[in-house]
Amino acid sequence: MSSEFGKILHVSVFGQSHGRAIGVVVDGLPAGEEIDLAALQRFLDRRRPGSGPLSTARKETDIPEFLSGLEDGKTCGAPLCAVIPNADQRSRDYGELADKPRPGHADFTAWVKWGGHADMRGGGHFSGRLTAPLCVAGGIAKQILARRGIFVGAHLAAAAGITDAPFPLYPTAALFEELAARPFPVLDEAAGERMRAAVLAAKNDLDSVGGVVECAAVGLPPGLGDPMFEGVENRLASALFGIPAVKGLEFGEGFRAAELRGSGNNDAFVVEQGRIQAETNHAGGILGGITTGMPLVLRAAFKPTPSIGRAQRTVSLSRLENAELTIHGRHDPCIAHRAVPVVEAVTAAVLLDLLLEGNHGTF
Amino acid sequence: MSSEFGKILHVSVFGQSHGRAIGVVVDGLPAGEEIDLAALQRFLDRRRPGSGPLSTARKETDIPEFLSGLEDGKTCGAPLCAVIPNADQRSRDYGELADKPRPGHADFTAWVKWGGHADMRGGGHFSGRLTAPLCVAGGIAKQILARRGIFVGAHLAAAAGITDAPFPLYPTAALFEELAARPFPVLDEAAGERMRAAVLAAKNDLDSVGGVVECAAVGLPPGLGDPMFEGVENRLASALFGIPAVKGLEFGEGFRAAELRGSGNNDAFVVEQGRIQAETNHAGGILGGITTGMPLVLRAAFKPTPSIGRAQRTVSLSRLENAELTIHGRHDPCIAHRAVPVVEAVTAAVLLDLLLEGNHGTF
Amino acid sequence: MSSEFGKILHVSVFGQSHGRAIGVVVDGLPAGEEIDLAALQRFLDRRRPGSGPLSTARKETDIPEFLSGLEDGKTCGAPLCAVIPNADQRSRDYGELADKPRPGHADFTAWVKWGGHADMRGGGHFSGRLTAPLCVAGGIAKQILARRGIFVGAHLAAAAGITDAPFPLYPTAALFEELAARPFPVLDEAAGERMRAAVLAAKNDLDSVGGVVECAAVGLPPGLGDPMFEGVENRLASALFGIPAVKGLEFGEGFRAAELRGSGNNDAFVVEQGRIQAETNHAGGILGGITTGMPLVLRAAFKPTPSIGRAQRTVSLSRLENAELTIHGRHDPCIAHRAVPVVEAVTAAVLLDLLLEGNHGTF
Amino acid sequence: MSSEFGKILHVSVFGQSHGRAIGVVVDGLPAGEEIDLAALQRFLDRRRPGSGPLSTARKETDIPEFLSGLEDGKTCGAPLCAVIPNADQRSRDYGELADKPRPGHADFTAWVKWGGHADMRGGGHFSGRLTAPLCVAGGIAKQILARRGIFVGAHLAAAAGITDAPFPLYPTAALFEELAARPFPVLDEAAGERMRAAVLAAKNDLDSVGGVVECAAVGLPPGLGDPMFEGVENRLASALFGIPAVKGLEFGEGFRAAELRGSGNNDAFVVEQGRIQAETNHAGGILGGITTGMPLVLRAAFKPTPSIGRAQRTVSLSRLENAELTIHGRHDPCIAHRAVPVVEAVTAAVLLDLLLEGNHGTF
Repeated sequence: MSSEFGKILHVSVFGQSHGRAIGVVVDGLPAGEEIDLAALQRFLDRRRPGSGPLSTARKETDIPEFLSGLEDGKTCGAPLCAVIPNADQRSRDYGELADKPRPGHADFTAWVKWGGHADMRGGGHFSGRLTAPLCVAGGIAKQILARRGIFVGAHLAAAAGITDAPFPLYPTAALFEELAARPFPVLDEAAGERMRAAVLAAKNDLDSVGGVVECAAVGLPPGLGDPMFEGVENRLASALFGIPAVKGLEFGEGFRAAELRGSGNNDAFVVEQGRIQAETNHAGGILGGITTGMPLVLRAAFKPTPSIGRAQRTVSLSRLENAELTIHGRHDPCIAHRAVPVVEAVTAAVLLDLLLEGNHGTF
Repeated sequence: MSSEFGKILHVSVFGQSHGRAIGVVVDGLPAGEEIDLAALQRFLDRRRPGSGPLSTARKETDIPEFLSGLEDGKTCGAPLCAVIPNADQRSRDYGELADKPRPGHADFTAWVKWGGHADMRGGGHFSGRLTAPLCVAGGIAKQILARRGIFVGAHLAAAAGITDAPFPLYPTAALFEELAARPFPVLDEAAGERMRAAVLAAKNDLDSVGGVVECAAVGLPPGLGDPMFEGVENRLASALFGIPAVKGLEFGEGFRAAELRGSGNNDAFVVEQGRIQAETNHAGGILGGITTGMPLVLRAAFKPTPSIGRAQRTVSLSRLENAELTIHGRHDPCIAHRAVPVVEAVTAAVLLDLLLEGNHGTF
Repeated sequence: MSSEFGKILHVSVFGQSHGRAIGVVVDGLPAGEEIDLAALQRFLDRRRPGSGPLSTARKETDIPEFLSGLEDGKTCGAPLCAVIPNADQRSRDYGELADKPRPGHADFTAWVKWGGHADMRGGGHFSGRLTAPLCVAGGIAKQILARRGIFVGAHLAAAAGITDAPFPLYPTAALFEELAARPFPVLDEAAGERMRAAVLAAKNDLDSVGGVVECAAVGLPPGLGDPMFEGVENRLASALFGIPAVKGLEFGEGFRAAELRGSGNNDAFVVEQGRIQAETNHAGGILGGITTGMPLVLRAAFKPTPSIGRAQRTVSLSRLENAELTIHGRHDPCIAHRAVPVVEAVTAAVLLDLLLEGNHGTF
Repeated sequence: MSSEFGKILHVSVFGQSHGRAIGVVVDGLPAGEEIDLAALQRFLDRRRPGSGPLSTARKETDIPEFLSGLEDGKTCGAPLCAVIPNADQRSRDYGELADKPRPGHADFTAWVKWGGHADMRGGGHFSGRLTAPLCVAGGIAKQILARRGIFVGAHLAAAAGITDAPFPLYPTAALFEELAARPFPVLDEAAGERMRAAVLAAKNDLDSVGGVVECAAVGLPPGLGDPMFEGVENRLASALFGIPAVKGLEFGEGFRAAELRGSGNNDAFVVEQGRIQAETNHAGGILGGITTGMPLVLRAAFKPTPSIGRAQRTVSLSRLENAELTIHGRHDPCIAHRAVPVVEAVTAAVLLDLLLEGNHGTF
């Protein structure tokens, strides 16, 4: 068991990059939830490789087929299964790779674990392509959360070391929509321009860059999550590290909090219009693992795409000797901007799971 | 359910800071493992508040009593329960706090979740004191791992923004022992001196500082962990965010990877003495969620102690109006150095859990 | 989350009886296992409605399509997804039922839980049809177990109150194969003849009958399972009660043990050819939740098919008044004989899960 | 991990029969629940060995000490830990048993699993003594359920093959209280008299008898539980088979349903005083794994106490040869009557867990 998360809402992802299809089973959705399939498709399209030079040339329409759980456009209580056929796989591009693990990829560890039986064409089950079904699950969760006044949005907070502006103290649903409509999901368009130039420069150098996605959720009730190991941070972390290439995660000030003093990191409580709020949000909306009611804010660090066009040193598994490898397949010079909706999706799925647990107090 | 983690090895923590006792149940330990109680106590002592000015004045001997699971100094297969009585609690220090949630603490969120019924004296179940039983579980796991050639160690990588030297590419068990013996667990003693000065300066300002703990594990077989949501990173993150005050977590280069190019972040594979290794370890020993056999390296960011001696703005829960609060209790001006063995403990418990799962391939 | 079981090997079933397709995701299969698809199909065919008068007239070929996890006829380590399209659904047969819950069916409870959104055509997600994907998962598990010398078989131990002969003390793989090849899976063919007559008699009375399936597994190592709540009995029970219509479960002597004396129920240990065995097997191969190495023996009680052709009293949900209902759809006068491979399937999946856990001692 | 169950409410049992203490951690209890400790003790006393000839001579007061989770007599939200010291252990009685596994006990399987390290004195972790902490957890659950109008009760439905009267269609809280107050928990006192005589007769023969416990819960809302593997039956079975000596479990008609026709087993729905009810309750209050709102009825079969005073054949583990064993320790000639509150306890804990999940529809 590996490709699953969730307690009340359970998400189970399957498929390999060059297999017949990829898909997801979502078990535990509330019944009677209308799913706007056009809006879901727009959400999925944000993740798809674009037509520009920043993305892989692999083309997939990524239109999910619903085998169960959805009747007359509404969830029916039974587990939902969505399948996305793989259309544009070119496995011949990956022949040499069976013997020469690509640095930075899971080829070597999959070979250790599964021997020669691993289907690692195009990254196999470890491929970023598996984030498409994740977005189906998370896109549905986003719609259900929105109906309850909870909105999840994200932007590319950094790429190639160039940083976007941070989210404001109170991000709004409108801001999230605006970001979702942008071809490059940043708050500061000038920074976005510099990011794109840096990605292209790396591409021209047969190289790649990493990035950071900042995600926020607003409208959450206070009291979600449990202490210690079932906290909101734990549950989100447990799922978010499942997105390929995530190597770091922080909430609120995160690593910067380690450099602050208590007086600078504590958020003063204040009463505003009869409600208890915090004046600042260094905590990222979570204290003791439990939501405060302030916006939840997290950042996930994505490593640079390990597939690069340069010759790299690796080994031959069969001959147990050093070797060189040049990867010829299609690949993204940066995946962080395409990961923006994926972080939203996983965050939304976890938050809906927490919300469905329903023991978040009565405040 | 909240204060539990683990799949084959299950750790369940209980207790409140000022309750009768704190403790832990560890279910799933292999039978016949000799536990060196003196060594375990030395490990626990690393977490205890020291006698110096850097720590809280609360004094606890923290000697665990074993109620089950340990017979004649060996694990017997049945769940192990260890209890640590609370001795030096002074609840009168916390009277005012029942109505005025301390900024940066879980007082407010516990009140939302559990109403006035929460026992938040001294932080209650959310207190850093709960890391003592965690260290019992993790200290036992460390001994069992060591018997299998796996060693876990950590140091204070940063405090108050002052950074220690990083771990070398191949940390050794001897280095871990050396660090464990030091009164202040840093690699670069000069940096440690500056950190201590910064902590004292904050203390004199009635303030506190945060820090970063870097933890490594060596001797791990390749092939531990599963893809996507049951990866080593996911499992560790799910547990490590349960340590109070952790707000960020990264593996290998972590957030710095987001600033690197692929050519600088990929680790080339090489054959050395007939074994496949990586020349560098930007991945922190994990690719695709699965161990590579290289040292596992992670860093956890701790926020500054929220309890500070300065007056802070908060609210009165009963009167729903703004209020001021000055905390008079004992507290640490920095908890990150005391958290070093805690991060080791949780890491060791998760790694033993993964190891016991036993499906890590046959390479 | 509902339609899932397993810890290392995780089985997740989806689909509704009259939806587009039904299917299963099996996550955690060992890699490199060859799956004999023809043998799997023969196993699935044992569950399919036959052409005779004992079964429903609904016709489905039930040939699974593998979307993932199986490459070149071998498991590849990634989650396996198999889909079975629904072909012969006739939803018009079920129109009246939306308002009138069928006695003995889940129509009423699904309506309570999911309101009018439940897709209960043909029983929806609660239908016996969902046992087809279960048999895909279990049929694969059976092949993997057989490769390790573990064999699972079952027979119809009773139907309509008529009992078959019990399994011998040591059932063999050959006996299981023989049973699997029989059109009516009983040990005593004369008893089988009487059972069939009783089923037909019930059918002629527009009624139905129940039955008992006895299942055994041989070749299990001693030491599988854990004490108390993770015992072999617990794990099997947790899954077997998921088969529609199961209302009772017993291991070894089961309910009969409650009538025995200790001297008659205890199994004496003996050394035979250097191995410790039991002279009798009243325990059904399990002591303290852990396998003894003797054959595992269980019996599951199936209630009579709730769909019967007679007029029955029920209520109108919309008008909240008493009503009468005559079910006109196709249905089995007995499902217990078709449940025989289903019990085998679920038993095999649970046993493989336990075996993969790999902590069953070194005896 | 073995000695734990529950999803929202998690119960974790620890201890060995002759170790220092036994106990339980209950994580996930709602906060602010007043626990009547005197009533809890009365509940625990029902399980304790009595002073009469029907029970073991081992004397334990079984008064739990609460280390956490309970402040001022109320749950505080944090995990509750209760410890019961072992007082009257006489381990010298069990010396010979280290080498000669008792037939019908877990001695052999524990030895296979844990080698000579297992602490099997008095049955170790497998002992019926572990049901005392289970009763602490379940007794608390019963009080919380009662406050919500849900009552759980049980009686000894059979012992030594002699049957009690069954529960009426609608058992009441008053009936449960009456049963709890009786020294021998049967509905039909004449049958109880015959049972006691049969137990004494077995005791005089140095033998033991088994029995059946019938348990019911009334006041449950319809809609509890989920389809397939997370049904009420699955969740109860998964926990109830954890009670030592349980070898069978059935719901409603259970095994008798297998002998009925559909027309005799289906429960007709009727509207009574504006509510939908069933005229009969062959289903035992569960359809499709989900509660109907009718009383939940289950029966658990207990095998005869395996410890008997007669000489029995077994093996010497060290010499791998046949041996004879006469058990001299104290033991119950029947445990089924003492198991009555244990079945109530486990049933109550599972039902509270299901109730806390809170997704049981809005009917």
